[in-house]
Amino acid sequence: MISFRSDYSQGAHPAVMEALMATNFEHTDGYGIDRHCAAASDIIKKLVGRDDVSVHMITGGTPCNVTVIASALRPYETVIAARSGHCYFHETGAVEATGHRVTTVPPVDGKVTPEGVDFAMTEYQDEHTPKPGMLYLSMPSEIGTVYTKAELEALRRKCDEYGLYLYLDGARLGAALTAAGCDVTLPDLAALTDAFYIGGTKNGALFGEALVIANPAIDDHFRWMIKRQCAMLAKGRLIGVQFEALLSGDDPLYFRLARRENETADVIRRGLANLGVAFDGTSPTNQVFPILPAKVVKELKRDFFFYEWAGEKDGMIPIRLVTGWGTTEDEAIAFVLRVKELLGK
Amino acid sequence: MISFRSDYSQGAHPAVMEALMATNFEHTDGYGIDRHCAAASDIIKKLVGRDDVSVHMITGGTPCNVTVIASALRPYETVIAARSGHCYFHETGAVEATGHRVTTVPPVDGKVTPEGVDFAMTEYQDEHTPKPGMLYLSMPSEIGTVYTKAELEALRRKCDEYGLYLYLDGARLGAALTAAGCDVTLPDLAALTDAFYIGGTKNGALFGEALVIANPAIDDHFRWMIKRQCAMLAKGRLIGVQFEALLSGDDPLYFRLARRENETADVIRRGLANLGVAFDGTSPTNQVFPILPAKVVKELKRDFFFYEWAGEKDGMIPIRLVTGWGTTEDEAIAFVLRVKELLGK
Amino acid sequence: MISFRSDYSQGAHPAVMEALMATNFEHTDGYGIDRHCAAASDIIKKLVGRDDVSVHMITGGTPCNVTVIASALRPYETVIAARSGHCYFHETGAVEATGHRVTTVPPVDGKVTPEGVDFAMTEYQDEHTPKPGMLYLSMPSEIGTVYTKAELEALRRKCDEYGLYLYLDGARLGAALTAAGCDVTLPDLAALTDAFYIGGTKNGALFGEALVIANPAIDDHFRWMIKRQCAMLAKGRLIGVQFEALLSGDDPLYFRLARRENETADVIRRGLANLGVAFDGTSPTNQVFPILPAKVVKELKRDFFFYEWAGEKDGMIPIRLVTGWGTTEDEAIAFVLRVKELLGK
Amino acid sequence: MISFRSDYSQGAHPAVMEALMATNFEHTDGYGIDRHCAAASDIIKKLVGRDDVSVHMITGGTPCNVTVIASALRPYETVIAARSGHCYFHETGAVEATGHRVTTVPPVDGKVTPEGVDFAMTEYQDEHTPKPGMLYLSMPSEIGTVYTKAELEALRRKCDEYGLYLYLDGARLGAALTAAGCDVTLPDLAALTDAFYIGGTKNGALFGEALVIANPAIDDHFRWMIKRQCAMLAKGRLIGVQFEALLSGDDPLYFRLARRENETADVIRRGLANLGVAFDGTSPTNQVFPILPAKVVKELKRDFFFYEWAGEKDGMIPIRLVTGWGTTEDEAIAFVLRVKELLGK
Repeated sequence: MISFRSDYSQGAHPAVMEALMATNFEHTDGYGIDRHCAAASDIIKKLVGRDDVSVHMITGGTPCNVTVIASALRPYETVIAARSGHCYFHETGAVEATGHRVTTVPPVDGKVTPEGVDFAMTEYQDEHTPKPGMLYLSMPSEIGTVYTKAELEALRRKCDEYGLYLYLDGARLGAALTAAGCDVTLPDLAALTDAFYIGGTKNGALFGEALVIANPAIDDHFRWMIKRQCAMLAKGRLIGVQFEALLSGDDPLYFRLARRENETADVIRRGLANLGVAFDGTSPTNQVFPILPAKVVKELKRDFFFYEWAGEKDGMIPIRLVTGWGTTEDEAIAFVLRVKELLGK
Repeated sequence: MISFRSDYSQGAHPAVMEALMATNFEHTDGYGIDRHCAAASDIIKKLVGRDDVSVHMITGGTPCNVTVIASALRPYETVIAARSGHCYFHETGAVEATGHRVTTVPPVDGKVTPEGVDFAMTEYQDEHTPKPGMLYLSMPSEIGTVYTKAELEALRRKCDEYGLYLYLDGARLGAALTAAGCDVTLPDLAALTDAFYIGGTKNGALFGEALVIANPAIDDHFRWMIKRQCAMLAKGRLIGVQFEALLSGDDPLYFRLARRENETADVIRRGLANLGVAFDGTSPTNQVFPILPAKVVKELKRDFFFYEWAGEKDGMIPIRLVTGWGTTEDEAIAFVLRVKELLGK
Repeated sequence: MISFRSDYSQGAHPAVMEALMATNFEHTDGYGIDRHCAAASDIIKKLVGRDDVSVHMITGGTPCNVTVIASALRPYETVIAARSGHCYFHETGAVEATGHRVTTVPPVDGKVTPEGVDFAMTEYQDEHTPKPGMLYLSMPSEIGTVYTKAELEALRRKCDEYGLYLYLDGARLGAALTAAGCDVTLPDLAALTDAFYIGGTKNGALFGEALVIANPAIDDHFRWMIKRQCAMLAKGRLIGVQFEALLSGDDPLYFRLARRENETADVIRRGLANLGVAFDGTSPTNQVFPILPAKVVKELKRDFFFYEWAGEKDGMIPIRLVTGWGTTEDEAIAFVLRVKELLGK
Repeated sequence: MISFRSDYSQGAHPAVMEALMATNFEHTDGYGIDRHCAAASDIIKKLVGRDDVSVHMITGGTPCNVTVIASALRPYETVIAARSGHCYFHETGAVEATGHRVTTVPPVDGKVTPEGVDFAMTEYQDEHTPKPGMLYLSMPSEIGTVYTKAELEALRRKCDEYGLYLYLDGARLGAALTAAGCDVTLPDLAALTDAFYIGGTKNGALFGEALVIANPAIDDHFRWMIKRQCAMLAKGRLIGVQFEALLSGDDPLYFRLARRENETADVIRRGLANLGVAFDGTSPTNQVFPILPAKVVKELKRDFFFYEWAGEKDGMIPIRLVTGWGTTEDEAIAFVLRVKELLGK
């Protein structure tokens, strides 16, 4: 059984596990006040090209989103997001649990557009309407698409126009930054956003996300907020150790893993495209959404694990394939060949 | 200057003021535990034809909506509403302040449809998605339209299918129930909803809404919830006294006022229609939304107070006229005649 | 039956009712944006001697407390209050409903002391402990006692030392400021607090409190906060009209009523003291807490309405008597004489 | 440098790390729906002697407390805890962030007493006061003390009398259950509480707590609550794997580690007692609180890492020593000998 179910279905990359083993017997202070978190923070500051950002190690993506939003917004403020955005669609109302609305806008190819932001602002009038205070993006989006630098700049201008923070959810940031055609860099993100996070869970770590706060207005007593929002780990150094392992060196493991995830996804993408298969969306990252005949999907499930992405329509089903740090080129080829066989091509 | 700005721009109907004066020197317990609230509650139980409902006097519409929603829903649940619905659009995020999402659906002529409910439920999948727990309607809707009994029954069936409470915001309920063509009665509402309120503020009271809870599951420690949500008045009897005045007798003042509001609105509606004026929506209640040339609107503002409802488009502006308990037929006629004059007809 | 149950057991003072009648037919904008609220605000600015404060009309005391606290505090902050304080003891957790702890301290004669503030701060250490951000006082306290100017100054210094806002709940502020021995004035409050409110409900109004915000840091988008916290009235002018009636003129009705309340309470206090009756606490305001034999209390209940303040102990029961705007000297004397009779003196 | 700073200052016990390594390459579903969580749950059901409990794997202690409290309580309800209790004292207001008060009571030797519960209930009167809905205990308490079975039974009776849930925070449950004189067992906890958790973080795991819900009323849509409260891990199986390693077998590692922690603490306790050193509290678990001369404390800090527990008083300072899974008998002896030397005995 070959798994394309998600990029968090295995444990951590062996190098990450080794780092955890190598530091296991050290005694350190808890809660992220330790030399590994400090070292990881220093590495990240170099990678983003700014010494004045603040870096926090958070247990997971939802805690990270929630803590940033709750810290940044005044009580009467909302966060704008695509209706398909993770903080709206897949976090069980954790944002609203902190008292803030997610003002939804229609995505285009999974992404928020400047027009979407304009629309959200039409719902703001006066003291009877909550005030948008932040724009939430994820990169890649829920369907794997990636903002160009020009798109991010245009959204930044919209945020400045309306007085919004710009926050970017980077659960799969590695896959985005290493995707074909992506012209955005970590320093760009530190320049264009008020905060963003470098996701570990979905790119080789056991767990943990590294939050980069570029705007000090969001950083006020942020460790209080992390604790209050249940996003602080007692053995906080574990996250620091993992990011040290992932981000150190001239060609950090983090980006090598992400590139390989994209490449194995490309093997599937190109292979299926050659077979005439159509796709849902234009993801260049480690998620692939081919649309296949229902009976092919059924057969594929004997040998491969993946999720159906939407319901059957006209006999066809879009499925989601995700490649992870452990996915091999052979596994990707096996999938393409089996589809070829089932399609009788 | 004739005012069509709103149905809460004047104080209370004189009969309501008289009742407040007549009871002013009485000593009673506070917080709604008094004989006037009890008497108003009894009257309402008779009007809705059920002795087993619970009636609470609440300071205003937003507090009423918020308290019902916060009491009825489990923390992980959301309330479905039209994106134009008051609890989403015009309450500054007061619902989200209690930790609950408003799941928005597109309205049709201001109203939620069964298809809208189906759409909202597509966003519910598993523990990663918040669970819709209630359907919020307002009757009349934000644009004055009224649900038919068949429409309410269809929505009730949807609610039963999905396990949702049905709550109806009756800020202008009098106008709805006395509108031309309305086939819904108070007993229907007590049968079809889990809770609804009879709005006082916008129909002759100084302030105050009478909440009717038909489903005891929502009524648990409800007075605790009222206090916690800042919706309890120290001199709670004031609301009881007003509803006694509004709802007593064979032909209660409440419905006479509402009928007259609709009639003066009809004078405007019919008069303008005869002049060939088009309208935004199909409101049969005390809100009228004529679309007039921008320069006519400008001239009208010299003598009449009203709000523009939307921006200018192709030289035309939709405006909102609202008739209140104090609006006279003469005022309505004056408006029609002035439009006639300005249109040169 | 003579009532000493509370100072909100009757309606409004007749002059307040007259003002509501006299303005009843006016059309104004809603939600507190009207000339009466503006006029009341101007009067209050003169009374507090500062033109740069912000004044808001709020529906009641709990909504007022909650809105100020929720607006002033960052999410990780708490409000310090006496464990007997209203916002802790008698508001059903409405403060916590906004996500903030009330850090309680032991009161001394009903009042918070500088040592109490010191104690609260011992619970603050680092990111694992919520940070006190405000001191809540009420004046008079729950047992009717009044802070001296020196006490308020000492608490202000403590607040400055620890970086706390100072907020004063003035539900019965009239009674405090006119109490025998009180050396605090409205200008003092505007100078020593960051915000305080002038209570209407318990001093002659139907309802409504006038919030004075002296520190603009608390005033950010405050009307959004009022709406969100369910503390905004549609016919907001009603509160403005009432405060115009209560606070206008050289010798405002508000203070005349308060003085008379204190005087009728003094009649009881002096009369009972002459009979050798002991009291709970040292209230100089319109609440009196005599300790009487249980059987006397039982007999008194035939002719007078009041609440027992605590349980029976050694055959004695402390009761609470409250005088209101409508309480007469004759009623106070009748009570004293009846006690005299029952005590056999 | 020998560390007694905490029982979470090192990584995981080697056997736990081995289990994580051994399962690292498996593909499983995320979020705790996997065979390791299922297996750990089965083991726990056997250990507690009930098949009808529900077991959930949670990222940490604060998330666990918060999720249970937010799920169990109605909005107007509070949780009773010792003022020194972790959920009040050391979680940055995370409970209040969910809208609930922590009603504090004075602890006796770190523990809540039936009289404490009685006191908390005196603050509950009617709809103006929030209603206690749960009793929170931690075992061991913040100062290491342990409830006897009789004490838990007495508290259970109080809870039944007042209609309270009983929840027990078991961050260091292993140390409690294996402490000298402890007569409480896991089956006792499943019988006497409505929910409790078996702490992993402070007893050999990298992180993670196993929550046991004995009362199904608390379990409603609990996985929705876990997600909403940011307490769910993407690679949820990691917690399952660790508890499998900790709890499997006839003499589970979990209890062996806890026993050893208590034993090394006993070495210190007995050794210092023989030197005439006094202690703060009567902890029989892995926390020791000796009171030492300030200058001895200063000297000890050269070779040992520990925290001062309170300020200096009469030249003496209480310090806190915590033994962890990695603490050796030699380290404990070294500490005692150094104190002996410094005391000149």
